Amino acid sequence: MNAVTDYLNQNQPRFLQELCEYLRFASVSAQPQHQPDMKACAAWLARHCRQIGLDAQVCPTAGHPIVLARTPRAGSARRPRYVVYGHYDVQPPEPFELWTSPPFEPRIEGRSLYARGSSDNKGQHFAHLKAVEAYLRTGTELPCDLTFVLEGEEEVGSQSLETFLQQRRAELKCDAIVISDTGMPGKDLPALTYGLRGIVSFEIVLRGPDRDLHSGIFGGAVDNPAMALSQMLARLRDRNGRVAVPGFYDAVVPLTAPERRQLARLPLQEAALRRLLGVPKLLGERGYTATEQRSARPTIEINGLTSGYQGEGGKTIIPAWARAKITCRLVPDQDPDRILALLRRHLKQLCPPTVRLEIVGGHGAEAYLVSPASPPAQASLRALKAAFGRQPVLLREGGSIPIVNDLKRILGADSLMLGLALPDCNAHSPNEKFDLDCFAKGQLMSAHLWRELAGT
Amino acid sequence: MNAVTDYLNQNQPRFLQELCEYLRFASVSAQPQHQPDMKACAAWLARHCRQIGLDAQVCPTAGHPIVLARTPRAGSARRPRYVVYGHYDVQPPEPFELWTSPPFEPRIEGRSLYARGSSDNKGQHFAHLKAVEAYLRTGTELPCDLTFVLEGEEEVGSQSLETFLQQRRAELKCDAIVISDTGMPGKDLPALTYGLRGIVSFEIVLRGPDRDLHSGIFGGAVDNPAMALSQMLARLRDRNGRVAVPGFYDAVVPLTAPERRQLARLPLQEAALRRLLGVPKLLGERGYTATEQRSARPTIEINGLTSGYQGEGGKTIIPAWARAKITCRLVPDQDPDRILALLRRHLKQLCPPTVRLEIVGGHGAEAYLVSPASPPAQASLRALKAAFGRQPVLLREGGSIPIVNDLKRILGADSLMLGLALPDCNAHSPNEKFDLDCFAKGQLMSAHLWRELAGT
Repeated sequence: MNAVTDYLNQNQPRFLQELCEYLRFASVSAQPQHQPDMKACAAWLARHCRQIGLDAQVCPTAGHPIVLARTPRAGSARRPRYVVYGHYDVQPPEPFELWTSPPFEPRIEGRSLYARGSSDNKGQHFAHLKAVEAYLRTGTELPCDLTFVLEGEEEVGSQSLETFLQQRRAELKCDAIVISDTGMPGKDLPALTYGLRGIVSFEIVLRGPDRDLHSGIFGGAVDNPAMALSQMLARLRDRNGRVAVPGFYDAVVPLTAPERRQLARLPLQEAALRRLLGVPKLLGERGYTATEQRSARPTIEINGLTSGYQGEGGKTIIPAWARAKITCRLVPDQDPDRILALLRRHLKQLCPPTVRLEIVGGHGAEAYLVSPASPPAQASLRALKAAFGRQPVLLREGGSIPIVNDLKRILGADSLMLGLALPDCNAHSPNEKFDLDCFAKGQLMSAHLWRELAGT
Repeated sequence: MNAVTDYLNQNQPRFLQELCEYLRFASVSAQPQHQPDMKACAAWLARHCRQIGLDAQVCPTAGHPIVLARTPRAGSARRPRYVVYGHYDVQPPEPFELWTSPPFEPRIEGRSLYARGSSDNKGQHFAHLKAVEAYLRTGTELPCDLTFVLEGEEEVGSQSLETFLQQRRAELKCDAIVISDTGMPGKDLPALTYGLRGIVSFEIVLRGPDRDLHSGIFGGAVDNPAMALSQMLARLRDRNGRVAVPGFYDAVVPLTAPERRQLARLPLQEAALRRLLGVPKLLGERGYTATEQRSARPTIEINGLTSGYQGEGGKTIIPAWARAKITCRLVPDQDPDRILALLRRHLKQLCPPTVRLEIVGGHGAEAYLVSPASPPAQASLRALKAAFGRQPVLLREGGSIPIVNDLKRILGADSLMLGLALPDCNAHSPNEKFDLDCFAKGQLMSAHLWRELAGT
């Protein structure tokens, strides 16, 4: 084990260079113009996996390819098997003008590495790859077989992954799945995430007149789609932060008292959160702490609004259409399809007869919750403690990793979520960054993890 | 007079060519990148005025220049004086993809000339220039002195015109002002517009977190500026089309019974209007006809909405900010400053403490109403009848020509609004067009007008 940790300690500068190379790919899965970057990124990743001694291939799918990489199989003995999941696709970088340095030109400042995808998720799964490299390059025996599944559609709903998992179900059968795509509350607070929120997302389009109209000539006798949309959206959430869609909370499992005690122990409470986000006042569902609101309670959010004239100055029109991008975060036991149906019904009821309603898309994923008392979870906690030198905390996280449910359903294994991103990592925001200490300690955690897990 | 009308009849093809040349300038006053086009357009216009025998100059202002062009003064005798007002600036052409042909490449189809600015307003004031050309080129004596004031900031609030009028007050003193910048209800229905709505316009910006946030990590504990904006906007107008700002209707002068009878005579009533606009159902203030709603009642409109992610696919963020462009149309005796103050107060009351409110801009103009029984108005009706061969109608129009009030206040003269644009001219919309018969008959109307006016 000393050989492994020495190797990790000695090679940090090179690892960082390699990660920067990886981050230079503008692998934005949502934007068609980045398709060539997606392809080039997958090819680079597979090549890199082969260079560190893995058996790697780029697997085509109906969408973006999946990179599959396995440790060399040692004899025929049945050893524990684990899948490491990650994703090489990233969120769109817009708005560009808010980035201090270009999103795909990695920049180091202090112990922070700035680039789109640095935290979410390239930097995090790269830590696991480097830990495995340390085992392979030092000739240290891995006590288990590992398979990396690195997909390219996480940020757009992981549409191809399910088919992929179904097709390779036997090959990917494993004892647990390891995912570093969540967060830790602070540099000194390593964390095991035992719960995630689910998600549904869709788009509302309202169409009024068949073209933009002169607001002087026609204004007063015709509805304004931007106004109609505002009036519909206004009725999706009340002013106390509670979702106002009938039936939305019906299936929500209440938080238990022990859970609420655990969550209350976490740092970043109201005042600090308000300062971190720069808002004049927080807003959340009454009767819950901010930590509970953002990790264990469901939400509805407008992600984008578009209508009419957006340029400089004014344009006196009634816009022909208005649209809104919407997502809900879900908790156990809300069913995404049921929630989408409730939303559709509510929106149809709210829609006035003066405009035409279209609901576009609509994909979803259930929330996820596992027991932190299970042997693999306990092994993870030991690995975290060994790497970070601190007692880890137990987290429910507000984000969604929809594929955790697919992995459970298809491979029959639970996911161990060992996140390395700090709360100020700006994931999905301009100036995304990854902490280099978390990167290094994440490698160490991974190196310990395989021993701890295989020993259980 | 025959010489004048013959000249007009014989020169239509050349006039059309010249108008097309004029329309090729992308004179978009709102967009800084079109500043060179604005300059070039003003220079072309002054040159053209000189070519037809006017004494013309480009007058610099703090904003876009004003083109001033006068008929040669005949002796020292005091003759009636009229100002012809027009504007060479145009609305932004966006969205480009909805234009059948490029907005600044004029295209003729049937009797329609398609181009941004063709109706609003280049084609309309060009008709007056051609009538004057006919007088000057045929050596026919004009019974009056004319001054053309052609500005470049009508679509952005005519900020420089007031100073210009003040500075040249003596020189521009006149008996009436002629403006063709309104509409006529149909090819066979020439119209004198005796009332216009006023306007106020401003922008609302709501700022929440200091950057776009990950909606999973933070969603639930922080307000969403796009939701807060929707909830505020929703409360500016009720579902019956009535503006919901306290005090908004206080100063509104009720429509008289004779006015309502006049307005009821106009074509394009509810069913036809609904078809023309392509909406499933009209929406307007209860108790008023569509014609009244869009010409003689005040309104509030959202002209544009912008927040968060607007690209393809999704982006799971809480946007840092949301903004809306708003205009109100006003009627007598609503005061724009008072209305802006009411709106500001209402918005401040509606704004939750979770976001920061900023109200940007805020310029306005009063509504306008003159007596159709005055001698100049009666002279205009005769000129319209002579040119179109039909009894003209009396209109109140829903649009705003803010400078009509400035002209009245500074020059002390009323405006005769003799609009040549048809209801389907797509002013402010993609595929703006101008009817070539209206262009030709507009020239004829102008030729008759100077005799009729001077004879009064």
